[in-house]
Amino acid sequence: MKLSIVKIGGNVIDFPEKLEEFITIFAKLPGPKVLVHGGGIMASRFGENLGIMPEMVDGRRITDKDTLDIVTMVYAGLINKNLVAKLQSSKVNAIGLTGADGNLIQSVKRPVKGIDYGYVGDIQKVNVDFLSPLLQGGMVPVLNAITHDKKGQLLNTNADSVASAVATSLAKDHLVDLYFCFNKLGVLVDEKNEQSIIPLINEDIYGELRKENVIHSGMIPKLDNAFDALGKGVQRVWIGKAENLAMAFKGKLAGTIIEKQRYDLY
Amino acid sequence: MKLSIVKIGGNVIDFPEKLEEFITIFAKLPGPKVLVHGGGIMASRFGENLGIMPEMVDGRRITDKDTLDIVTMVYAGLINKNLVAKLQSSKVNAIGLTGADGNLIQSVKRPVKGIDYGYVGDIQKVNVDFLSPLLQGGMVPVLNAITHDKKGQLLNTNADSVASAVATSLAKDHLVDLYFCFNKLGVLVDEKNEQSIIPLINEDIYGELRKENVIHSGMIPKLDNAFDALGKGVQRVWIGKAENLAMAFKGKLAGTIIEKQRYDLY
Repeated sequence: MKLSIVKIGGNVIDFPEKLEEFITIFAKLPGPKVLVHGGGIMASRFGENLGIMPEMVDGRRITDKDTLDIVTMVYAGLINKNLVAKLQSSKVNAIGLTGADGNLIQSVKRPVKGIDYGYVGDIQKVNVDFLSPLLQGGMVPVLNAITHDKKGQLLNTNADSVASAVATSLAKDHLVDLYFCFNKLGVLVDEKNEQSIIPLINEDIYGELRKENVIHSGMIPKLDNAFDALGKGVQRVWIGKAENLAMAFKGKLAGTIIEKQRYDLY
Repeated sequence: MKLSIVKIGGNVIDFPEKLEEFITIFAKLPGPKVLVHGGGIMASRFGENLGIMPEMVDGRRITDKDTLDIVTMVYAGLINKNLVAKLQSSKVNAIGLTGADGNLIQSVKRPVKGIDYGYVGDIQKVNVDFLSPLLQGGMVPVLNAITHDKKGQLLNTNADSVASAVATSLAKDHLVDLYFCFNKLGVLVDEKNEQSIIPLINEDIYGELRKENVIHSGMIPKLDNAFDALGKGVQRVWIGKAENLAMAFKGKLAGTIIEKQRYDLY
């Protein structure tokens, strides 16, 4: 059976009603699955209450010691454990893990090249030998952006990158689909028109779209990330709204599907 | 091989040097082991920074919604994940878990009888079927005071109670010793004299000591808890300072050993 990696962000987590709806949908998704969550908005708000202002460069959070403590508390504590408790109440045998737990995700502190991101980690490896038996045992890992360097240091990592790294690592032994839930219905031709969804993107289409400058700059890292995952063996990547996840699972058009090549089997 | 449950509190966690020393000692302890941690001092300080004052009744924290969020962040996030990362760097395959993860510890919100403790949980059951395979696989669970009610609600639980409940549940299938690290060298005859350690307490001795009013009132819940654990199959309970844990493991006199009866095998 196909293994599904689902990533959600602040646009689901920060809204109790949307989160409840998501939990209900996610609980019913068939097959083995992994949930990866971000939670940047909540961490920023929480830090501000403590007088620590978020500092972002190119959408990445500069992570000093205080900020690392805050994201560790908010991601690995508050958000992760509430998600696990809610999933457990929905009969999902969830287990919340950071990259440090069972040495699940080892990363390296990003080297300083112009910008010092602080305690930010770039993923080195995923411990599939720990993850696979959990999935085989019917457990649902709930992962977040906190990883470690195996030298005692926690590191703040991009949650999209965690989802991709876990997906590509599991793709060596499993058929894996990767689902990114975000705040739009899919990849749009016109950012201002929610209905202008591109239903399918493959490498050829992506090349054309980029040539025509159609893709919104904010989407390019997400799409590059998606093609990178496809290049490493992930079957299919989906980008869309969390509330359409159930439709996407049923193969209905509801968001953007990203495939390596539509006809690469021929 | 004997299974060891070690509980540490704020007096270790709040002091970086003591924590480093503890990690070194704990990493070397032989056999399967579980670490249980509290962290009340850090949670109180952190809450105060956010303008939320700790409210204690009989040494138990009154846990309103904000306080629950704080202890979830501090216990399950900050303290737990840093402990796991440090242990991983010391070649201990640690995995940090709350009671919600894998439905490890299910509790019930304490009924209001005079005092409303808020989101405080009384432990109902420990999921040994989840815990035992982890231990057999050489993993070291790192547990904290956050549990859940299986209905989606996290609950703040006493860390000593978590240690006891895990010990007694595992005692059904394992030989289990329980170690409580605290801020004294052991149970003292004279609270002001650190050298007045009672090396061994069994039920007879405990009865005598209580009759003579020798036991400091703060120790009575700990000792009652210890005898309760012994009554439920735990082999031996030790109370002492974290830095003497290695000595205690080697059977040397370093703290207080609590046994059901010294000669109960005869």
